[in-house]
Order: sequence, then C-alpha cells, then structure tokens
Amino acid sequence: MTMNVTQKIIAAHLVSGEMVPGGEIGLRIDQTLTQDATGTMAYLQFEAIGVDRVRTDLSVSYVDHNTLQMGFRNPDDHRFLRTVARKYGVVFSPPGTGICHQLHLENFAKPGATLVGSDSHTPTAGGIGSLAMGAGGLSVALAMAGEPYFIAMPKVVRVRLEGALTGWASAKDVILHLLGLLSVKGGVGRVFEYAGPGVATLSVPERAVITNMGAELGATTSVFPSDGQTRQFLAAMGREGDWKELVADADATYDEEVVIDLSALEPLAAQPHMPDRVMPVRELAGLAVQQVAIGSCTNSSYADMKSVAQLFAAAKVSPETDTLISPGSKQVLKMLAREGLVEPLLDAGARLLECSCGPCIGMGGSPVSGGVSVRTFNRNFEGRSGTKDAKVYLVSPLTAAMVAIRGAFTDPATWGTAPAVPDLPADVPSIRDMFLYPPADGDGVEVQRGPNIVALEKFEGFGDVLEADVLLKAGDDITTDHIMPAGAEITALRSNVPAISAYVFNRVDEEFVARAKACDNGVIVAGENYGQGSSREHAALAPRHLGVRAVIAKSLARIHRANLVNFGILPLMLEDKADYDVLALGQRLTVPVAGITAGGIVRVAVAGGGSVAVRNDLTQKELDIIRAGGLLNYVRLSKTGVA
Amino acid sequence: MTMNVTQKIIAAHLVSGEMVPGGEIGLRIDQTLTQDATGTMAYLQFEAIGVDRVRTDLSVSYVDHNTLQMGFRNPDDHRFLRTVARKYGVVFSPPGTGICHQLHLENFAKPGATLVGSDSHTPTAGGIGSLAMGAGGLSVALAMAGEPYFIAMPKVVRVRLEGALTGWASAKDVILHLLGLLSVKGGVGRVFEYAGPGVATLSVPERAVITNMGAELGATTSVFPSDGQTRQFLAAMGREGDWKELVADADATYDEEVVIDLSALEPLAAQPHMPDRVMPVRELAGLAVQQVAIGSCTNSSYADMKSVAQLFAAAKVSPETDTLISPGSKQVLKMLAREGLVEPLLDAGARLLECSCGPCIGMGGSPVSGGVSVRTFNRNFEGRSGTKDAKVYLVSPLTAAMVAIRGAFTDPATWGTAPAVPDLPADVPSIRDMFLYPPADGDGVEVQRGPNIVALEKFEGFGDVLEADVLLKAGDDITTDHIMPAGAEITALRSNVPAISAYVFNRVDEEFVARAKACDNGVIVAGENYGQGSSREHAALAPRHLGVRAVIAKSLARIHRANLVNFGILPLMLEDKADYDVLALGQRLTVPVAGITAGGIVRVAVAGGGSVAVRNDLTQKELDIIRAGGLLNYVRLSKTGVA
Repeated sequence: MTMNVTQKIIAAHLVSGEMVPGGEIGLRIDQTLTQDATGTMAYLQFEAIGVDRVRTDLSVSYVDHNTLQMGFRNPDDHRFLRTVARKYGVVFSPPGTGICHQLHLENFAKPGATLVGSDSHTPTAGGIGSLAMGAGGLSVALAMAGEPYFIAMPKVVRVRLEGALTGWASAKDVILHLLGLLSVKGGVGRVFEYAGPGVATLSVPERAVITNMGAELGATTSVFPSDGQTRQFLAAMGREGDWKELVADADATYDEEVVIDLSALEPLAAQPHMPDRVMPVRELAGLAVQQVAIGSCTNSSYADMKSVAQLFAAAKVSPETDTLISPGSKQVLKMLAREGLVEPLLDAGARLLECSCGPCIGMGGSPVSGGVSVRTFNRNFEGRSGTKDAKVYLVSPLTAAMVAIRGAFTDPATWGTAPAVPDLPADVPSIRDMFLYPPADGDGVEVQRGPNIVALEKFEGFGDVLEADVLLKAGDDITTDHIMPAGAEITALRSNVPAISAYVFNRVDEEFVARAKACDNGVIVAGENYGQGSSREHAALAPRHLGVRAVIAKSLARIHRANLVNFGILPLMLEDKADYDVLALGQRLTVPVAGITAGGIVRVAVAGGGSVAVRNDLTQKELDIIRAGGLLNYVRLSKTGVA
Repeated sequence: MTMNVTQKIIAAHLVSGEMVPGGEIGLRIDQTLTQDATGTMAYLQFEAIGVDRVRTDLSVSYVDHNTLQMGFRNPDDHRFLRTVARKYGVVFSPPGTGICHQLHLENFAKPGATLVGSDSHTPTAGGIGSLAMGAGGLSVALAMAGEPYFIAMPKVVRVRLEGALTGWASAKDVILHLLGLLSVKGGVGRVFEYAGPGVATLSVPERAVITNMGAELGATTSVFPSDGQTRQFLAAMGREGDWKELVADADATYDEEVVIDLSALEPLAAQPHMPDRVMPVRELAGLAVQQVAIGSCTNSSYADMKSVAQLFAAAKVSPETDTLISPGSKQVLKMLAREGLVEPLLDAGARLLECSCGPCIGMGGSPVSGGVSVRTFNRNFEGRSGTKDAKVYLVSPLTAAMVAIRGAFTDPATWGTAPAVPDLPADVPSIRDMFLYPPADGDGVEVQRGPNIVALEKFEGFGDVLEADVLLKAGDDITTDHIMPAGAEITALRSNVPAISAYVFNRVDEEFVARAKACDNGVIVAGENYGQGSSREHAALAPRHLGVRAVIAKSLARIHRANLVNFGILPLMLEDKADYDVLALGQRLTVPVAGITAGGIVRVAVAGGGSVAVRNDLTQKELDIIRAGGLLNYVRLSKTGVA
C-alpha cells in the first residue's frame, strides 16, 4: 500500500482501529509535552491513574505560561511540576528556558515520532515531521501512563506548495493565506500534509510556523515531510542522529488537496478578532498602531528574531508604538547575544522580555484601551490580550518590525528590499544542560505541593434521564477563552478547580456562575464550532464542577469535544441546526441519556412543550466514558471494577 | 562660615528659613523625577495647579514599576505619562529603559543639585553628590511648578568611613551594617553625609547603593562628596561637564557622628521582615533558599551585574533555587551584552527579566509558599514580595550569587577568593537617545487618558471640631505597604483613587474599608514610626477618600507625615505614649481642631469619658494647609482666593 507521510506515521503507531477517515484509531505515543498552565492538572491526573513511571520514550514538562509569578500560586505550581517530574521520570524545563514548542523543536522533536501535548500548538513539531497533536491534560496523562491516544482517523489534505516566497512574504503569510482560504473551521477532522516543490524552499523553523498556526484551522495537526532541510536543522541542533527520511510515496493519495503558489503571496494580516479574517497588509496602510509584540510559539525562532534585529539596527521604533520582544528560547537569545544582536533590539527602543509565552496569552504586555496591537502570534481572540477593547492583528515578524518602525501599517511596496531569511550560524550553542533530567528511580522523591493545589474531585456518572436547565445560549465560534478565560489572575487557579470555576464565562455573561450554582444540572446551548482555540481542559472541567452535564451545539471543535468526553459532559449536536432557535435560556430540558447510542439520534424534550433532535459522533467507548462520569472513572473502573 | 556638603547644597538653594535643625526651610529644586506608580497622580496634580510648563532645570518621568502591563490600566497610564510629559516639558523614559534611580544616576544626576522624586529611593543620587529627597507626588508636582520644597532642616550626621572593604564585603554591607546599628527609625530628621578616608575607596555606583538604602533609616537623605571618583564616573558616562568638586570644608561641623571601619565588615543579611534585622551571613549557614532575586534600584549597576555574571560563569545555580536577574538599565544590559556576559547568566540557569523594578515591588517573581527568598533589594516587608508567608532576606549581589549557586546560605569563609569590584569599561555606551525629549512648545500636544484615569476629587477642609471614630488601632512600624498595598493588581489603580481605596489596610484588617464607609469621619491610632517605607502618597490620599481625617500615633515617618499634611489629614502625636492604651477601636473621639496651634498641645476627648493629650510638629503653614483641606486647596486659595 502506498502511503502519505501522515499514514506512514499512523501505521507505524497504530494500536487499534483502521485507517479509514472518521473511524476511531488508537495510537502509541512516543513523546508527550506539557506546559505549566495545563500541566499541573495533567500531573494530578497522572497521579490519580496510579502508574509509578512514565511509559513514553520521552515526556517533557515545560514552564512557559505563568512565568510572571504574581503571588505564590504560580511558583508553587512550578515547584510541584519540578518535583513531580523528578518523581515520575519527566524531563523538566524551568521557567525562563523558553517556549515549549520552540524548545521541543530545537531539542527533542523527531521525524516520524508521535507527540501528544497539553497545548493546542503542539502541532509545531509537525515542522520536523512529527505527528504532533494537542490534547487535554487527561489525554496526555494517559499517554504518559502508556495508554494509546484515541482520535478519529483524520482526512489527509495535501497542501501542495509551488514556487518560493519572494519579497516581504514569509512563512507566516503561508498559514495566514490558508486560514483566509479555509477559515477557522476548515481543518476539522483533517491533517494538513505539506508537499510539492515549495517544501524544499522552507527551513524547519519556517515549516514550524505553518504547522503551529495550522491549529487555528481546527486541524487535527499539520505535518511536513522529513527531508534534507530537516537533516540540516537537526545537524545544527547537534541531533543529526535523530534524523530519518520521511516522505510520501510517489503515488500516495490524499483525501483533499489545496494548492498554494508561494511566489504569489504577499504580507498578510489577520484582523480582529479571528485568525481567519485575513487581508493584505497593503490594504491596512495608514492604520496607526500603538503596540507591536514579537515572539510566541509561532514566531520566536532565531531567524525571526535576527530578521527583526537587522531591521531595527537601521531604524528606531516609533515612540508611540510600544514594542515588545520575547525570544523563543535561551538558545535563540544566546545566538542573538553572540552575534551582537541584543544591542540593536535595545537601541531601537524595543523591550526585551523573558523567553516565555508572555503577551500572547495575556501574561503581561496588554495594549492600551482601544489600542491597535500588531502581533506575530497565532490568536487574536477578543480580550485575550488582556485589554477587552484592543484590536489585535496577526502578522509575520517582518511585517511587525516594519509596523513598529513606521508606527503604523504601511504598504510593503514602500519597505524597500526585503531581507533574506537568516541561516542558522555554523556553531549553534546547545542548551540541553539547562533541562533537569529525572533520576532513574524516583522512589525517594517528595512531590511538593502548595495550598492552591487541590486534589481532583470525583464526578458522578449519568442515570437514565438528565433533567437540566439551559444555563447559556451562546453564538458561533465560542472559544475556550470565552468559556474559561486566561490571564495571570485566572490561570494561577488552574490547579484549584473550585476556585477557577468562579470565572467560567465571566467575559461573556457575568451571571453565568450564579445561574449554574442555583440549579443542579445545566446545559450549554451553542452555535457552530463551540470550543475552538486553546486546548485547556478547564473549559470542560470547570463547567462540569458547576454542574454542566451536556452541550448542545450546531458543531463542536475537536479538542474541546474530547475534553467534554473526558470529564463526562455529553457533546450533542443539533440534528437540524434551525432548532437552535427553539432553545432558550432558562428552559428545562429532558435528555433521554439511556436512549443515546453511538452516532444515534434522540429527542430532547423542552419543558412546556416541544423538543429538538440531537445527534452525536461518539464512539461506544466514548459513550461509556461519559456514562461513567468521565475518563478517570472509566479507567479506574476498567482496572479495578470500581470507578 | 565653614560648611559640610549638606549645608553647602542647602545654602545654595535656600529660599526661606534658616539652617537650624528642626526649623522649616524652603529649597529651590533643580531636578525632579517621577516613576509611573506615583507619577500619574503627580502629573494629575501638576495639571490641577495650572502651570503651563515645568519650571525646573530638568524633570524626568520614568516608567519602571508597572511594566508587566496586566490589562489596559498600566499601558493607559504610560501613554498618559508620555503625552503629559511632552505637553509640559518633561523628559520621558519609556518602559524597559531601566529603573529610575539607576537611569538618573547614569544620565542626569549632578553634584550639588537638588532633586525631589516621587519615590522614596530618590536619595540614590546622593551617591553622586546631589541632595536628593523622596517626596509625595504632590510635592514633586509643586516643585515642577517652581514652588520651593519645604522640609524641616535636618541634623547632619557625619558617617566617617575608615579603611577599605575586603573579601566578600561590599557596599551593600555598609548600609546593612548602619541599619543594624541605627534601626529603621534611626535616621529620622537626619541627613547622612559620608566622609573620611574610606570614601575615596568607593565608586559612585557603590556610594549609590549606600545612599539608596539610607532611605530605610528613615533619613531625609544621604549624600557623598563629589570628588575624583565622581569625576571619573561622570566622564565614563560622557558627562564630565556635569562634574564639580563638592567636599566639606576642612573644619566643617556635624550634629552627630558615626564611624564605620570598612575593613571590619563582612557579608550581612537583613532577616525577615525588616531591613534593620541584620546579622552576619555566616550565622545563617545551612538555611535552604528557594529563590534568589538580583537587581532593583539598590543593586543593579554594571559592576553588580558583572560580578554576578563572573561568579555564574564558573558554576550553575541550584536547580531548587529560582534565580531572577533584572539589570538596572539598558545601558547596563548593553555593556553586559558587549562583554559576552549575557550568556553566562543564561547558561547558569538564571532568568533574565526586563530592566525594571520587577520582583522588588512584587511586580512578578513572587516566591513559593513559605519560601526563603534572598534578594539584593532594599526592603523585605512582610507580603511585599507577593507571597504573604515568604521569608525575604536582603543581601549584596555577591552574597546572592553565592546563595544561588549553593542553593542555601553558606559561610563566606567557604566561598574562596572574593572577586574585585569590576571597573567600568573604557567605552561606556550612551543610551541618552532612548529618552523622549519634549518639544520646546507643548501647546499642540494632546494628553491621552484612559478610562481608569480619574480626576482628583476636592476634599473639604476642617470646621472647629472634628468628631470621628477610631477606625483602626495599629502597632509600631506600620509601613505604607501596610496602609496601601502594592502588587500589580492594586498599583494599576493608582490613577483611580475611588477604586484603589477598596484595598486600604486590607492586608492588616479586611474589615477596615467597610468600617470606614460606615461612618463619616475616621481616625487611625498607631504606634511608633507610622508610615515608614515607600513614599506612596496613596497611603494618605486613599484613607482621606475613605474619610480618615486624623492620625494619632506615637511617632510618624517623615515622608508619610508630609503626605498626610498634603491631603489634609491631621498628623497628631500622643504627648504621653502610655495614652496609646487609652484608645481603642470604635471609640468616638472629639478633636478640638480650632484649638490646635503649631507645636501646641490639645486634649482629644473620648466618648464615654476620658481624654488624651496630643501634640503636633506642624508649622503654621502646614496647619493652614490642613485646615484648607490639603495643599492643592491651599495653593489654589493663595493664588485665586478660592480653594
């Protein structure tokens, strides 16, 4: 059988199921990663499973999100993560070392490996030829415990790249173009596999920009072949031994195809407040910009930073444009320092922040009220920057640098000659001794906890019938940021579910929590693509704590749907989307849970008359998990007979 | 008349009064500085005065406190500061450029100049021979408007330095030694003027460490002579033209004298939770340390950072000791980068933060719960780090670096040979083009405000009698951190007095605000040294907003007492300190305001029987200011006849 890259990796890791799009497959997972905002919960879950050592080839715990450490909660979490890693055999990356995806690409990701990470941008490692998927912390905990990772076999979309980038267009513009083409829903149930002659023109860090932000398509993941560029990158990282060739068979088939002519691309920007609201930068010319932020897991590589430093060496940033730079890793910062490129950044008037996620997740660097902020990041959801009325545009580092210098969007035709993408230096410094490696035996290690680290509660399963009130009627494209907001104050509570639950939906509807607490069981009604964005499982866990037992939506985003299953919330879809209008806030619904079958349709009765038909795309196992009250109950039940 | 350095500077700037200790003197102010946490209010006050241009030689507005920018409030404040500076002729230092005192020393401070700053560590510039005093924002606003700055003529203490520092002892240990000797109350009403043969052995940055932390003595300020070291420093900064010799006359007299033998000093540490709880580092040997933080206006100079980088080049920091480094300015960071000293910091495992105040003011970098944090800062007040139960020790950068490497306090006898204090490089880069200089005419400049920037309310003055309830009975050494806590969430509200008032005393007594709101007028009863610490005038302004009209204490800290006067709160002292026991929470007091005379004694009646005698050390003018409802009313009244 001829195979594409995606099929080859899946075939080599297939534990159960068949490679037929839509069917459930179980995959052996080689590597896992966590970051601190989701990781504390993932390791609490790993502890609850009761395995004494991770069973992956490699598991890494990165600290890159809550690095500001406002108050004891974040540092307590980081200490917990450091000690729990040591106990269970996980490599630990201390705060300040860098951003998980950048670090993983530089130090650990391998062609042909499977990687599951508790961060939605885990597909970054697809740039090096890993099959890398974002998942909830519980799925990652199970993968660490040696359990397979279950997904629906995706459709594989060939993205055929032709030509080569020219002028000021860069890798970021490739993925922005694709987002404009396909929308934030366009990738659901799909892997985007890059192919064609344009692939060889892109370095691994450029490919990683594209696979990283492929997450915004709603894709299962994105992947590039492993070729000479991959070998060259791995050699530069001192890891040539990790290289292997991995390309699609000549006559491999794909489920769908998209063609992109790289040479036709120009600098693009995603407008507020969605990554798919893409338009050419030239059409934004004249718009004054109050802030520029450069960095994030999308665009913080050495080449990105060096490009910016070179542009800044020739000009100062506008005094009216606050310009923030967060290098992706200490490796990147070390290379900049060696080449004398820290000074040009400082001299230009830019601010050099710690190597971490920073402003991308609203961890500082909020724009002014109503301000226009131009960022090299991957998401521009409303309020994510920490300033509710800010207008965030997503662009490439080159565009961001030129905006910073001009203080406004201008036409790239006025920017002069575009610089070439910088090559890695001949001698790339290794930072692999900055990670903390676990001892062979973690028996004697004491896991240290703080007062904000609260053990998981046990959720009850379902009876035959669910009586529940509609607690919220939400529109389309509700993100996990809407459901469970981020920001320093709130993410600090991620290891304390009762405390963080007070913030559920609070940027959408301040009365939500009070309503939820006032009734036993609740249902969320939503439009299309409910739960898109970040993988945070607290967007399921915290609503469940508040009594949410079902979601009835027009459609659901992949990772969030999986998180709903994991925490025992029924993910239901309206059979007739027009029935959305039948449902209203405060209605009492009766869901015939006993009658739900995998893929079947039931009618949900509305108190006072009427009903709506709901379907599901659950497997039998997922249904069993939900009936048991969630995956932890299910796993315990299957191992011990008691949930 | 022969004069010491202090008297020479005062004499050259004397507008009113005589140089007799305790008497009020008015000084012409050459320079002012503000930082952003106090500056927004200072410029709102400057606007309220109604002058169209600053009348100082130089006024600088630094942004160094709220640089994390969590949400719109901080960036809105910074935009306000940038535009108001441009309008009124103030130099603006953007966020990330560095810490105000470090920057002022490097770029603007002059021997013989008077400097008033809205930050209690303004005395840092005493290291270069300025008479530099911390004050409330309103005093700074008036100085910017060309009004004299009024203080009580201080006693001048000669601190005679003998010998030279040896081994691991450093400038920080000089001031820690003095704090141990004199206590946090030992400097009230005094200027500490350094003299003797040891002076010449100390560079300007070392001197600035000492004058900076002289603030913790409660001193009016501290000052060093301007000599060859000063000339050398100014020359290195490209400012030799700013140098002039300024030394005490040979037979100058002093009010008091302290002698310190520099050669007898050893590494010292201030224990939790007061800067004067000083003991030798060797006696702390064995104490495990969870965090080290290096930087702050006390210890963030090039020499400090280079010393640390050199120690870190030979060793890694302990993986159990989170180590944070905040260089004092972009100039410092540029010099480190040029000399290849950024990499050793990163390689050792330390975290490089932005050039700003950072963890010193609880702006991130909080320690773990119950953790021991060793810091090169100047204050270790309980809770200031953001972690209420953390134990903060204050030490020199050398001690901090060795603690970080060892993961614990150890005996300096085991540290090997101490490094020499690094000299400045031959070619010091200037960063003076990073400041924004105002245009000659600010007429057309629009000052930009955000929704959190609330205009000042007008406080009413006093009638003949004040009836008020005791809202709090506090103990000794209450700091302005106790009164008006800092931390990102709260300092973000400094330009919004009604909002920030909700946090007054909330770390001392969570019911305080509710009690204050429940009655018309309030009184605070306190022990010794009420209001020590940071100069923040919100510690007077916010209580005034809540109806506090008088403080009755055993004694009052200088800057806070001035802030009470400025905002129309009566600063009264118990004539008999034993009467402290007569007063109790909730009592109704009757203060015969009409009967109060400057320096006189009145009896305050306690409802239900009894009374206490209170005195004051107010001048007639201060009494008039208080009666008018504060200084802004008084100034408006004196200019227009209407408050």
